[in-house]
Amino acid sequence: MEAIRWDGKALELIDQRVLPTEERWLRLEHVDDVAGAIRDMVVRGAPAIGITAAYGLVLAERNGVARADASERLLAARPTAVNLRWALERMADIADLEAEAKAIHAEDIELNRAIGRHGAPLLEGKVITICNTGSLATGGHGTALGMVRSALEAGKRLHLYALETRPYLQGARLTTFECIKDNIPCTLITDSMAGALLQKGDIQAVVVGCDRVAANGDTANKIGTYALSVLAKHHGVPVYVGMPTSTLDRRCPTGADIVIEQRNPDEVTHLKGVQIAPDGTPVWNPAFDVTPAELISGWVTEHGVWKTPFPSE
Amino acid sequence: MEAIRWDGKALELIDQRVLPTEERWLRLEHVDDVAGAIRDMVVRGAPAIGITAAYGLVLAERNGVARADASERLLAARPTAVNLRWALERMADIADLEAEAKAIHAEDIELNRAIGRHGAPLLEGKVITICNTGSLATGGHGTALGMVRSALEAGKRLHLYALETRPYLQGARLTTFECIKDNIPCTLITDSMAGALLQKGDIQAVVVGCDRVAANGDTANKIGTYALSVLAKHHGVPVYVGMPTSTLDRRCPTGADIVIEQRNPDEVTHLKGVQIAPDGTPVWNPAFDVTPAELISGWVTEHGVWKTPFPSE
Repeated sequence: MEAIRWDGKALELIDQRVLPTEERWLRLEHVDDVAGAIRDMVVRGAPAIGITAAYGLVLAERNGVARADASERLLAARPTAVNLRWALERMADIADLEAEAKAIHAEDIELNRAIGRHGAPLLEGKVITICNTGSLATGGHGTALGMVRSALEAGKRLHLYALETRPYLQGARLTTFECIKDNIPCTLITDSMAGALLQKGDIQAVVVGCDRVAANGDTANKIGTYALSVLAKHHGVPVYVGMPTSTLDRRCPTGADIVIEQRNPDEVTHLKGVQIAPDGTPVWNPAFDVTPAELISGWVTEHGVWKTPFPSE
Repeated sequence: MEAIRWDGKALELIDQRVLPTEERWLRLEHVDDVAGAIRDMVVRGAPAIGITAAYGLVLAERNGVARADASERLLAARPTAVNLRWALERMADIADLEAEAKAIHAEDIELNRAIGRHGAPLLEGKVITICNTGSLATGGHGTALGMVRSALEAGKRLHLYALETRPYLQGARLTTFECIKDNIPCTLITDSMAGALLQKGDIQAVVVGCDRVAANGDTANKIGTYALSVLAKHHGVPVYVGMPTSTLDRRCPTGADIVIEQRNPDEVTHLKGVQIAPDGTPVWNPAFDVTPAELISGWVTEHGVWKTPFPSE
C-alpha cells in the first residue's frame, strides 16, 4: 500500500478523505493544489506531509513560483507537523529538487523499516494504537504501525486494537483499511473504550506516532494520545512512540512551546456531511495534544529505542 | 423539556434516535412496541427506561398480555439498566397499574430535583459530563445534568463540557440539544479530548449518571465513564455520580457481578447510515463500563450525598 506517487510530471495522492469506502487518486500539478491537499487532509500523517511538501516544491519550480514563497504556502497548510518544516528546509538550497524529493521519499520508507526493526522486539500480544501511522501516513510501512508490521513479519503473535480517533476517524477509516488489506489482526473500538479495554488487564503495550517531539521528550500527537497515555500509565502498560528523528524539534524545549492547531468545528458537529449536533453548538476542536515525556516508555527511532534525555545530534 | 408523555390511552415518546435534527414523537399502544422502543433506543437513560416500562405494563394489561409475560419482554430489552427491573418489580402486585406508573413518573421528577438540590453546592466553574443525564434520560430535570441545572438556578456560574459519547453520540445529539434549549452554557468535545481538557487545569468536577451501582459503589455507566474517571483522578478532579437510589442494586455485591451488554457493531462502523469503517471490520462494542468505587468522590442521591460504605436500607 502507498499514499504518494510521483511519476516525474505530477504528484498523485490517494484521497484519504473518502477512504475506506472509495479509493480515489488525485493528480496534482501545481504547488497550491499540493498546499490545499495538505490543508484539507487529502494527505495526513507527519512523514507523508513532509514528502508531499517536498514534491510540492518540485512542482513550484515548474510553476514558476519562487521557492521561498512556495515554502511559505506549504508551511501554512499544517502548522503543527514539524516534518513539513524539516522537508522544506532540507530542500531550501538544493539544485536538483526532484532528486532530493525522491530521496526524501525513499529514505522515509527505509527509515520506517528501521523503526519497525527496532520496535518489533517490544511488541507481543494485544496492542492499542490511535490514529493512522501506517503506509498512508508515511512513505510506506509506517512508524507505530510499522513496528506492528515488522513484529508480525518476525513471526510474533499480535492483535491490534485501533481507536477510531475522533473527530477525523483516521483509525476507523485508515488504520482498519490498511490492517484488512495487509492481514494485520485488528479490532476497531471507539476512543471511549480504551479505558475499559485496558481495565481488562491483557493489553501489553500502547504504540503511537508523533507530529512533533520537543527536546525534553514531550510529544505532540493526535488528540486523544494524552488520555490514552494516562490510561496506560494507570494500568502499568508501556507507551512507545514511533519517532523518525526528523520529527524531533530540538529548537522546541518543552511541550509548552508546541502550538496546537485548532480545526473547524464542523469536524465535530458533522460526519461526512451528516449533522450529529444541533445547529450553533459551541465546539473545542484541538487537532493534537501533548503527552509529557514521563508518560512515555520509549521513542523508537531509526537509530534505536531512545529514552530521555535524548542523545545529542 | 420532556421525553415521555402519557395521555391516558397511549404512551408518547420523543424519538431520541433522530434528535437533534428532527423532533418526532411516537405514539405506542402495545407493550411489544414499548419493549421495541427501549431496545432500539427510542428512549434511553436508566430512569426514563424505568418509567417507560411502567407505562408498558399498563398497556400490556389493556392488550390482554399477562403481567409476568409482559415484564419478561420488557426486561429483555435492556439487560443492564437496573431501573427497568426496579419499576417492573414495583408494579408486580399493584391493582391500579396506571396510577402506579404515573406515580413512578411524578416521583422521578421530584427525585431529580432533590438530586439537583443536593448536588448544586458541589459544582461551580467548568464541569465535564458524558452521555445524556438530563430531561431526556429521566422523568424530567435530570440526574447529573439536573445537578448542573439546579446549580445554575441557584445563580452559580457554570460551564458544561459535553463529551460527544461515541458510539451512540448521546452527548452530541441530546445533551447539547437540552443545553441549547434550556440556556445551559455548553461546549461539545469528542471523548478523546477529555484528557487534554483536564490537562489545561481549570476543570472543577466531572458529573456523570449511572445505569447500575453495585452495593460496594462500583458504578456501571455509559462506556467512557471509566476512562473519564481515571483521567479525573490523575488530575485531582472529583467525580460525582447522580444516583437515584433505585439505581443501587444491593443484590449485586461488586462491579464484577455487573453484566455488560454488547451492542451491534454497526453502531461503531456506521453513523446514521454512513459507513465509516471498511466492510467486515471486527468491532468490540460494550455499551457500559464499570468505574471502581475508589475513583468516585460521591454519589448524589435524592437523600443527600453518599460516600461508601453506603447507608443500609
